[in-house]
Amino acid sequence: MRAVDIIAKKRDGLELSSDELKFFVDGYTRGDIPDYQASAWCMAVLLKGMTDAEATALTLHMAHSGDTLDLHHIAPFVVDKHSTGGVGDKTTLVVTPLVASQGLPVGKMSGRGLGFSGGTVDKLESISGFNVSLSTEQFMAMLAEHGLVVSGQSADLAPADGKFYALRDVTATVESLPLIAASIMSKKIAAGADAIALDVKVGQGAFMKNMQDATALAQLMVAIGRGVNRKVAAVLSDMNQPLGNAIGNALEVREAIETLRGGGPADFREHCLTIGGKMIELAGKAANLDAAKQLLAASLDNGQAWAKFVEWITAQGGDLRQLENPELLPAAPIIETVAAPQSGFIAAIDAAEAGKTSVDLGGGRLKKGDPIDYSVGIVLHAKVGARLAQGDPLFTLHANNRELLAAATDRLLPAISWSNQPVAVPPHTLGIIE
Amino acid sequence: MRAVDIIAKKRDGLELSSDELKFFVDGYTRGDIPDYQASAWCMAVLLKGMTDAEATALTLHMAHSGDTLDLHHIAPFVVDKHSTGGVGDKTTLVVTPLVASQGLPVGKMSGRGLGFSGGTVDKLESISGFNVSLSTEQFMAMLAEHGLVVSGQSADLAPADGKFYALRDVTATVESLPLIAASIMSKKIAAGADAIALDVKVGQGAFMKNMQDATALAQLMVAIGRGVNRKVAAVLSDMNQPLGNAIGNALEVREAIETLRGGGPADFREHCLTIGGKMIELAGKAANLDAAKQLLAASLDNGQAWAKFVEWITAQGGDLRQLENPELLPAAPIIETVAAPQSGFIAAIDAAEAGKTSVDLGGGRLKKGDPIDYSVGIVLHAKVGARLAQGDPLFTLHANNRELLAAATDRLLPAISWSNQPVAVPPHTLGIIE
Repeated sequence: MRAVDIIAKKRDGLELSSDELKFFVDGYTRGDIPDYQASAWCMAVLLKGMTDAEATALTLHMAHSGDTLDLHHIAPFVVDKHSTGGVGDKTTLVVTPLVASQGLPVGKMSGRGLGFSGGTVDKLESISGFNVSLSTEQFMAMLAEHGLVVSGQSADLAPADGKFYALRDVTATVESLPLIAASIMSKKIAAGADAIALDVKVGQGAFMKNMQDATALAQLMVAIGRGVNRKVAAVLSDMNQPLGNAIGNALEVREAIETLRGGGPADFREHCLTIGGKMIELAGKAANLDAAKQLLAASLDNGQAWAKFVEWITAQGGDLRQLENPELLPAAPIIETVAAPQSGFIAAIDAAEAGKTSVDLGGGRLKKGDPIDYSVGIVLHAKVGARLAQGDPLFTLHANNRELLAAATDRLLPAISWSNQPVAVPPHTLGIIE
Repeated sequence: MRAVDIIAKKRDGLELSSDELKFFVDGYTRGDIPDYQASAWCMAVLLKGMTDAEATALTLHMAHSGDTLDLHHIAPFVVDKHSTGGVGDKTTLVVTPLVASQGLPVGKMSGRGLGFSGGTVDKLESISGFNVSLSTEQFMAMLAEHGLVVSGQSADLAPADGKFYALRDVTATVESLPLIAASIMSKKIAAGADAIALDVKVGQGAFMKNMQDATALAQLMVAIGRGVNRKVAAVLSDMNQPLGNAIGNALEVREAIETLRGGGPADFREHCLTIGGKMIELAGKAANLDAAKQLLAASLDNGQAWAKFVEWITAQGGDLRQLENPELLPAAPIIETVAAPQSGFIAAIDAAEAGKTSVDLGGGRLKKGDPIDYSVGIVLHAKVGARLAQGDPLFTLHANNRELLAAATDRLLPAISWSNQPVAVPPHTLGIIE
């Protein structure tokens, strides 16, 4: 077998065999196949596509390109979740203790934020002392003792994905559904998941801009799951406006805390119940999604979820005082509320622009390794459908200096559209694919 | 400007500006843009195509990626030729002295053979002492003194082409018309050509297998020529069967000598008159192609072309005795004629198989840098349309050992198809595009 022939076959739109995909993935992981062949292949995949069988084989070979975790000696059935990324997406912070509070073990690896999308690892690190750099042994021990652990991505799992991802980022080959699906699914499979609830965002502030692409990605990941004998369900939800009200690392931790205490924004609470409910349902801990959501709603309201959250965060080194007194979390020196410039109904809040505003304030990064400021960000006081009078609080900015605050105001205000006519609150959950 | 954005733009099927192409070509030539970005871009170009304007701009920027030759202080108008490569294609050996014999200066750079296609430089090197490694100063001096020089490709001219070509070879991105056209044309423009006669082969033994692809390539190169203010004409000719009778380096030199002395195979002589005639016509030295061909036919028949050939070869160090006594050229120890296995009409001679047979005998190379044996090869005794009786001489093999001879016989015999019905001699020239 020769790499150039495999590239040519995909270039010509033919289906690659599992053996050919294994040869390519293994060769690239080892370094026998150079970057310049892998990037030409990625471009051919992007432009010519893959069958479900190809995407499934690619996922499996990527999953087995390095170590794989087997968690079955700790937990008989392991459920994981994955979000395709969005603005204000602090779901993992709430959903993992919520699900674990029902006795379902959750061992999860998460990523950092890049561009206008935030990352769970960054959010967790805004809590003093919280340690995301766990060895495999520490990961296992935490999971065994507390039934919950969240760490950064291990480089030993699915190393092919790490190489491909870095390459795709600089060769305009990110936007390929089979490559995206294989990247997500290979990491989850390598990390030992038996079932995976996929949180697929759709809209301005998501990677998938429309329902057609999001549905295709969700269907492909569900098909891959079936092909590799994992239970997979995908929840499609709106990301035209940000999720919840808070955007920015410590601000999102505060909102997660409110939600875990039974409060929080309605859309975010509902989102957590749906994603968590799917995890519960996939694990067979409830007869259907409604029953699962009822279980979880009770856990939010009766303190079980909060107790698990506190147990988990402190077990990973986080400062208990910051959980109990969120004002002790990193706080920005300048906090200023911007008023509605007019009366009317909010018709749209551009999530991408909101995410970029948070990055501008220092709360995100444009490229890997950039430092971030945990304290800054945005809190929205109204979402799409709300009726405001001119001068009502519209959003509050948390900033480190006046120039950035002014620039953020100038960016965010025009990202909010107004209507004189009533605007319906848009549905949050757009579909479930399984 | 960022390379990744230029890749993405082409991936999305959009037209790149001349500035963007310059940024990419210059960046890649300097090494600022890495191979893995260039290969993803090449794959996007292959699959999404280029407009004529893009291909023209790409050609110009590749032509100016290194040194360029200006020959106008030596010759007021410089004509060049380029063949897309074929089997038995010794055209340059005849056409360049033929055209130069009419007072039209020819300064040409040629390549080596690869795969089943031979290369002019290898053929010339089968003459003892012939020197193809000339400095720019030597190239200029030869052209000034003799009106004719043929050297190997200079690495200082169009270095972008050398880098792109090596990369395309290993990334399955060779077969892109705009990349092929830009590669050919950039070298010719960098070498100072005012007019270029393109010898585009079509068929089994050519890079372009059918008239559609060959016509598209020819039209594109003519359009590029127009865009960069060069006179360009393309002659499309048949390469389903080999050109002339001889395949193999020294054997082809012998056939070129016969042709320059007024003999040689009819199809090959006609081909040389057409390609040479186009060069004469492009230079304005004849009113039309017919008049140009008449001039050149006279030169072949009256010894002018032969005299110029002798002057040229000896000026570049070639052994005069080998020209006057071609049996002194490298000769194989085993020469064996294979007889027609049946009576009938020859319906086809697979040029690619004939070329590969010559490579098998040691006369070509599978990869760059392989050594070659100048002495070996094939001489056909009949071409498509000929009527033979069983036992008539079909072809003669020149080999270095009996095993290779037997294998070559076994390969070449089935490459010749027979018919019981008369077969028309196929037309050689298939069209002229200008």
